[in-house]
Formats: sequence, structure tokens, C-alpha cells
Amino acid sequence: MAGSLDIVGIERLRPLLDRRRVLAAVRDALVWQSQGLVQSPLPGQLQFREPPGDCHIKFGHVAGADTFAVKIATGFYENAARGLPSNHGLVLVFDARTGAPRVLLQDEGWLTAWRTAAATALAAQVLAPATGAIGVVGTGLQASLALEWLPETLGDRPCLVWGRDAGRAVALAAAASRAGRAVVAVASLEELLERSGVVVTATPSSAPLFPAGSVRPGTHLVALGADSPGKQELPTDLFAGAAHVLVDDLAQALDHGDFGAAVRAGSVAAERAVPLGAVLSGRVRLQRARDDISIVDLTGIAAEDIAIAALFCQLLDGPA
Amino acid sequence: MAGSLDIVGIERLRPLLDRRRVLAAVRDALVWQSQGLVQSPLPGQLQFREPPGDCHIKFGHVAGADTFAVKIATGFYENAARGLPSNHGLVLVFDARTGAPRVLLQDEGWLTAWRTAAATALAAQVLAPATGAIGVVGTGLQASLALEWLPETLGDRPCLVWGRDAGRAVALAAAASRAGRAVVAVASLEELLERSGVVVTATPSSAPLFPAGSVRPGTHLVALGADSPGKQELPTDLFAGAAHVLVDDLAQALDHGDFGAAVRAGSVAAERAVPLGAVLSGRVRLQRARDDISIVDLTGIAAEDIAIAALFCQLLDGPA
Repeated sequence: MAGSLDIVGIERLRPLLDRRRVLAAVRDALVWQSQGLVQSPLPGQLQFREPPGDCHIKFGHVAGADTFAVKIATGFYENAARGLPSNHGLVLVFDARTGAPRVLLQDEGWLTAWRTAAATALAAQVLAPATGAIGVVGTGLQASLALEWLPETLGDRPCLVWGRDAGRAVALAAAASRAGRAVVAVASLEELLERSGVVVTATPSSAPLFPAGSVRPGTHLVALGADSPGKQELPTDLFAGAAHVLVDDLAQALDHGDFGAAVRAGSVAAERAVPLGAVLSGRVRLQRARDDISIVDLTGIAAEDIAIAALFCQLLDGPA
Repeated sequence: MAGSLDIVGIERLRPLLDRRRVLAAVRDALVWQSQGLVQSPLPGQLQFREPPGDCHIKFGHVAGADTFAVKIATGFYENAARGLPSNHGLVLVFDARTGAPRVLLQDEGWLTAWRTAAATALAAQVLAPATGAIGVVGTGLQASLALEWLPETLGDRPCLVWGRDAGRAVALAAAASRAGRAVVAVASLEELLERSGVVVTATPSSAPLFPAGSVRPGTHLVALGADSPGKQELPTDLFAGAAHVLVDDLAQALDHGDFGAAVRAGSVAAERAVPLGAVLSGRVRLQRARDDISIVDLTGIAAEDIAIAALFCQLLDGPA
């Protein structure tokens, strides 16, 4: 009586991955968000202590869309030691005219990973300096995807990676090389910051990864790790000296992003934040001077989850 | 790699329904809630305008429990005119040690309906006067279930029903009679209030259903309709004269319950609310005088969703 729920596993989603279309969908989502077209209350969060973990629930509706989506993602970081994946995720797509559930995308967190990689690549492209390497801090899935996706929007540049665990950084570089991409694991974070024009931080850190003074003038930073209260990657005083500060969503960035930490520390005014989507749409035009430091704080937004879910539902339905 | 998700349809859940066990599970949930053992942030809500509808997302974790749950329920009230069910719902149960999704209960909203019926029956039992009919205002699913479930906790009493649509009230009474239960559709709300000792309001109303003066001294009211901002069933001044005011959860009741409307109107102090679970556990003992008016404001809590989901997962696993 309620219609049937189509259940789609990751094995049906992976062959449909098309980076260009995901980039276009996530760009749309960021633009809609900046235009106030997305109903997306603050995400739900649960925190677990024994073992440590978290659950994020993002949900929303884009004005006029036929569907809405609820995305549930978990991260339990001690799973790896037990040979289990750290992240799980699924997306439920509902009919926005009847409320009936239509599709369960059992993506095991991959849709979130891909839309985050796309948002990172779009954020990197905005205000990226013309030269300098792509430097990625972190060695997890999102770091690995950043190294794959950033060349889509930035073009081919030298790629560097650094992580606290040097072995993992070397392994990540080796895996990239086997896939035909040149990635160098650098010996120190200082070296990465010195050589990179675009720096992506993709860690679960709860404290600044480096002092503000170690960031070279002319660097464009994209921070995507701070997705819950208590996480932080960038030093708050880096924002004081930044020429441009962009966010995917102001409310979320203030609630739990690096930007919010900087606002609470008095390093930057909340009014300084420019919506990434407004820059992507061309509504706001920013100019970078050679020595400007610029920052994009990504918290991950429901609009991206809705857009990538809608894209994959469309791809599942058949050739465009 | 992530383990498999067990997908369970309503046809596997319905035969397992056991009112006594559901009552016990929901009683536990209300007690845990009153003891501060439940991590349950305010529910997520989406509102839709064309057509009108809403989506509620409730999620939480009971301290020490092996699982946690996310419940998604929708209500689109114009569906009925299209021959579709107004409500949909499903519950996802996750492993609280790994974050992996374990079971999808595609209950089509029935678990929510049953746990709400159980909470209503428990709320009715607390402070119910010894005599007087069971009066139910409303003719929807929850009203129908209240007429089935209240005799479980109150014993057999005359049952009355009234709704704005007299035809639906008569049909509901006729259906109850065919099922062997005596339910009388009364001609007016005034008659229902005059004859009832326990009054349950189960409507999607956004304005008080009756004036405070029409409630007879000695009445115990259970209001369960106000589950979103903008809904209201009871007149705010009824709270001013009430001897006892109970809530399932204070934060939710203040946010969107009838109690919150009364607090905002200045009719009652927020401190007057007693947790229903504290009364069920015996931690708080309330005495009713013969002419006391008492009110239980139910908003529906994640703990109930977790408890009923855990119960059905256990029942699915085999005989106890």
C-alpha cells in the first residue's frame, strides 16, 4: 500500500560514479544553499564514548524538488583496529509529495565521501593561486580522494601528502602511483606548507594542526575535517590575517566549523564569511592578491547529500 | 565488508505485536528518559507546504545499550484524498559499538503508532480517576488505537469517541463493535467531556479543541496531538487550573507541546512539569484529589522509538 522501497547497494552505485556529474551536482547544491533555497535544519548528532564514535544525520529539502533525503553517517575510529571500516552511511530518499520512502542508497558512506571530495575540489578551485603544489594533510579516505579529485578542477599539479603516521602517507603515495598519479609523501608538515599553493586539511583533529605563522603568504586553504563540535584543524589566528574566508553554510560553520572556533576566539567577525556557493555562482566576485591567504571552511551540508542522492537515483533510472 | 542490513517489512512485524511487551518497553523508555539515561537531541523536522506535510526524525541512544536507532516518520494529510496512507515511517537500528546499520524496520509508521498508543495508555493510567468513561477526541489511527489500548491499563470502561467528522466517528465506533469492543460515538464534544473521566486528544489540531471551562473537575487529560511547532489541542488556561501536569520530555514539551504553548502564554511555570517516567517508576508519587484536573502532554520521544525497535529486533530473533 505504501509503494515499494528500492534498496540499492554500493555495488550498483560504484559503476555509476562520474566525477564531472558529481561536481556539477555539488556545485548546484552549494549555489542553492547560498540562495536560501534549501530547508536544512542543523544536523542531528549523537556522540558515543565506549568505543568512541559519532553519528551525523543530515536532512533537507530543496524548494520545489520532487524528493527529499535523510543521510545517516557514522564514524567509529577504533573499527580499523578490528579490521572493520571506520565509516558507514546510507541515504534515504523520500517522495516530497506523499512522504513515502522511495529509495535506500546503502552507499556505506561513499556518497558522502564523493560529495565531500567534490566540495573540496570546488572549494580548492575558488581562489586557488596559479602555481604551487596541491598539499593534502591527512591520510584517510578523504585525503586520498582529495588527491584524486583536485586535479579535476585545478589541473595537473605536483601533489604532496603528509600525515602524522609517515607509513600511511608513504602507502597513500604508493597507491596513487600505482594508479598512475604522481603523489609525493613529504617528510614534514612544514615542507608541505612551504611547497603548496593549495592546502587541504582532512583530519579528525581536535586541535590546530600547525601555527598560523607557518602558512606561507599566497596559500589557499580548504579545511574539511571539523564536522562536529570539538574538532578543529586550523589555528584561530590564521583567520585574523586571511584576506578571504568562505564557508559552505554559515550556521554550521559557526556551530562546529574551524570558522566558528575563530569567531568564538575573537579572531574574525561572523560577518566576514562569504558563502562558497555565492562565489561559485558568480554572485560574489573575489579577487586574490598574490600574497593573500584565503580559507574555505567546509562542514558538509545536507544540500550536497540531497543533490548526490538525486543524481544517483537519476543515474540508476537509466541513461540520461 | 560492512555486514548486512536486515530489512524487515511490516508483514513480519505485525504478527509479533504483543501489547503487554510493548507497554513494558515503552514504560522502560519513559523511565530511562526521566533518569537522564537517554541521549536524544531535539528531533529533526522538515515542513512541506505544497502539498502540506511534515517529516520527523527522532534519534537517540540509551546509555549502555548495544544499539541505537533513527526513526523517520512522515505525515502528509492530503494523501487520504488520493487513496494513499497519510503516514509513513521506518526505523534504522545501528550497532552502537561499530556504527554499522543492522536492521531496517519498514514498519510504515506502525511502530510509532503502537509506541504512541502504549505511551497514551500508560499516561492514562497515571492519575486516572476511578470512574468515568474513556473519551477519545479524534477519529484517526491514533484515536482508534487509544480505544483499543486504554482498556489494557484502565480496565474495561465505557468508551466514547467524538470527531469533527461525525461520519468518521460513527464508522470508528462501528468498526470497534465488529471487533467486539463497545464504543459509542457521541453527538457533541461537550457530551464527551461531561461523561469521561479520562479524555485523550488525538488530533492534528492547531488551535484549542475546547474552552478550559468545559472540562469537568476530576478529569484526567492525555494530549498527544501536538508533535510539531504550530500544533495545539488544549487551551493554555487549562494548565493554570490543573493540579498536576506531566510531560514525556520537558525539552520537547516546551519546544512544541501543548505545555510549551501554556508556558509561553504565562499560564503555567515550566518548573511545574513532572516527568511521566518519574511517576511510572515511583520516584515521584502524586495524589489526585477528587476534583483535580490533571494533564499529560505527550510529544513522542526517541527513547520510545529505540525501545520498541529493540523489542521487535529481539522478537524477530526468536522466542524469548
